[in-house]
Amino acid sequence: MLSALDLARRIEAGTLTPRAVVEMCAQAIAAREAEIGAFTALDLEGARRIADSRAALPLRGLPVGIKDIFDTVDFPTAYGFSAYAGHRPNSDAAMVMAVRRAGGIILGKTVTTELASLQPAGTRNPRNPAHTPGGSSSGSAAAVAAGMVPLAFGSQTGGSVIRPAAYCGVAGYKPSYRLMPTVGIKTFSWSLDTVGLFGAGIEDVAFAAATTTGRDLRIDRQAPQAPSIALVRTHLWPDATPDMQAAVERAARIAEAAGARVTELTLPEIFEDAIRYHGIVQDHEAFRALAYEYDMHRDKLGPILSAQLDNAAAITTDRYDDARRNTRRARQVFAELMATTDVILTPSAPDAAPHGLSATGKPTFNRLWTLLGAPCVNVPGLIDPNGLPLGVQIVGRFARDKIALAAARHLEAALAQAAKR
Amino acid sequence: MLSALDLARRIEAGTLTPRAVVEMCAQAIAAREAEIGAFTALDLEGARRIADSRAALPLRGLPVGIKDIFDTVDFPTAYGFSAYAGHRPNSDAAMVMAVRRAGGIILGKTVTTELASLQPAGTRNPRNPAHTPGGSSSGSAAAVAAGMVPLAFGSQTGGSVIRPAAYCGVAGYKPSYRLMPTVGIKTFSWSLDTVGLFGAGIEDVAFAAATTTGRDLRIDRQAPQAPSIALVRTHLWPDATPDMQAAVERAARIAEAAGARVTELTLPEIFEDAIRYHGIVQDHEAFRALAYEYDMHRDKLGPILSAQLDNAAAITTDRYDDARRNTRRARQVFAELMATTDVILTPSAPDAAPHGLSATGKPTFNRLWTLLGAPCVNVPGLIDPNGLPLGVQIVGRFARDKIALAAARHLEAALAQAAKR
Repeated sequence: MLSALDLARRIEAGTLTPRAVVEMCAQAIAAREAEIGAFTALDLEGARRIADSRAALPLRGLPVGIKDIFDTVDFPTAYGFSAYAGHRPNSDAAMVMAVRRAGGIILGKTVTTELASLQPAGTRNPRNPAHTPGGSSSGSAAAVAAGMVPLAFGSQTGGSVIRPAAYCGVAGYKPSYRLMPTVGIKTFSWSLDTVGLFGAGIEDVAFAAATTTGRDLRIDRQAPQAPSIALVRTHLWPDATPDMQAAVERAARIAEAAGARVTELTLPEIFEDAIRYHGIVQDHEAFRALAYEYDMHRDKLGPILSAQLDNAAAITTDRYDDARRNTRRARQVFAELMATTDVILTPSAPDAAPHGLSATGKPTFNRLWTLLGAPCVNVPGLIDPNGLPLGVQIVGRFARDKIALAAARHLEAALAQAAKR
Repeated sequence: MLSALDLARRIEAGTLTPRAVVEMCAQAIAAREAEIGAFTALDLEGARRIADSRAALPLRGLPVGIKDIFDTVDFPTAYGFSAYAGHRPNSDAAMVMAVRRAGGIILGKTVTTELASLQPAGTRNPRNPAHTPGGSSSGSAAAVAAGMVPLAFGSQTGGSVIRPAAYCGVAGYKPSYRLMPTVGIKTFSWSLDTVGLFGAGIEDVAFAAATTTGRDLRIDRQAPQAPSIALVRTHLWPDATPDMQAAVERAARIAEAAGARVTELTLPEIFEDAIRYHGIVQDHEAFRALAYEYDMHRDKLGPILSAQLDNAAAITTDRYDDARRNTRRARQVFAELMATTDVILTPSAPDAAPHGLSATGKPTFNRLWTLLGAPCVNVPGLIDPNGLPLGVQIVGRFARDKIALAAARHLEAALAQAAKR
């Protein structure tokens, strides 16, 4: 994989050119893209032409992949939906412009599941092409995992950043709700859709988030302090495989051995209900956000999304308003809870990447945190007996993203140390 | 003007056809559109063709105008910006679909100021064509005021629904933040942009809001109870003209005489600051939401919007985050304040519609309520010595839209009674 921070430092030091980074990407793409299918569109020539002119800017002319639900003028933007093949928006999404303003190069658009739903696309997992890379940000996670690009943007409504990051063994960062604007992104659920980032490691996604938002989020300038970590199993723990359960418990022990204060936390009952609220809020909003597609292009929708919207039609506004009210309450309780710990440690997904491409896995261990708007980080470094990555998740307090990133970095380093022994 | 509710009742009773309503609109358009310039696109033929087939649906085939910052597949959508002339989105905005699903007919697109900013467009005020109709929902307010359409949708980020409604002498309703989805609307500020409605009277906008959101918002089925009203001048009261100050105080007396409990309320100081937060939040977000237009089409932007974005570039994320935090606090204080009264009475604008078309008036008396996400209603019925409308505003508690609409209706009826005497 390509570390964005490492590349940026070498470019800053003058020992590497942005153009040379484009060639690294081009080589990986030539070697693996035919098998993996991470991109819907690429512009290597354009990147070669302009990369070096961006070397002095914060993102140093680094190539970036953009999930195809983000509007781009220079690339077709089909939102993963056949009815929109070849569509060209008339403006770039806000975060695409943020990448440009920071001196990043848009190398290409990455595969999204259909309209960022659970309806799978064809991308394969670079760790094992017989397995799904997860979704909905399938191409962004796979492109980073295959070293085809050092950074990629995605989005999460249920678990669409953390899950594919876990399945592909890369760092994934879903910021606090609205830390990054969703302007110019095809909406699935306006209360939940969150922009996120993929990179080789935690420092890389923190670096990219800092440069594209202008916020103090870099964590590479000093070694992170040992955090306090609450191990949270949630009532869904039995849905995690034994391998995943063991991975999370092992991560807790390794973190503790590296100096973290590790406690166990049982969530109050309100959070069990909250997972149901997620589905109500998401689907009620999707029925409205995707009204045109549902009413006018229903024959072109895949069966999973189509059935989801069929069911969504029956969710009353009363149930939706009730779910929204209870969500606000759950957020308050969560803020109080997070006064006692820096971060939570919990699974990123129920499992390693499932076999086959007919489904993208389940957002079981993501929906609650997305609903709460909390920052989430997938920490790579553990593997299952078959060599597939097992991602563990660090969850922080709303708007305390830097603390979550630093804690994730601490754990990542500890896992890397432990792997060496 | 055309009362949507009255027309819907007559269609329901079988004494009027939707097609006949289209003809009423066509007549008003033929008589006044050349002078007023409320529409950017019209499809009378399409409306004639399908209107009667919608008679059994909740909106009864009524024609609706849509502000041209809402995406529509069937009409060009230029967001009031010359660079986007002739643009055709590939899907309809969520509220456009909500109108269709409820059985409304999209009659045409109405003029917006440039990208819904303070940069004026050419629409004239139907009450006096030498005056501005206000902005940014200029065409929607003017089209309803001229009887060219019974209902029109607009949006408000500062005062873009309530102010033009006041200037044009129609009912304007800005719902609680996110009661209506903004999906498919050109973003100016994602924390503030709010969909709103224009109609002949308060019952009409309540009827339209109920039918397009599926919420219990109709207030026409029984006479509204007399509300408790707090007269709030705010520290900006000196910015209101003597005519406007007199209008608001007169409205308070008339409401009291009609049975309302009227008190006076001085807002805590936090709300004085909050008006500054509005500008910080709005402009910081606009610099990101309109990044493509600012970076790629700057030469085509009008001078007012261009200067606003120039200044916005200097707003740091720290100031923005601070404004967002303080806004959350102000919302909590506001919720506590609103436990003591049903609604607030305050000016809709500083004045009657200013003379000339070079500016759209000021959002002085709107920004605070938009920031708080509170439901706002412009109540028409008072006029200044020159015969121009003077709008007074009812502001409710967040998510208590029906109470605000009912109180506005009570005041509207009392003003109408008083005008007869």
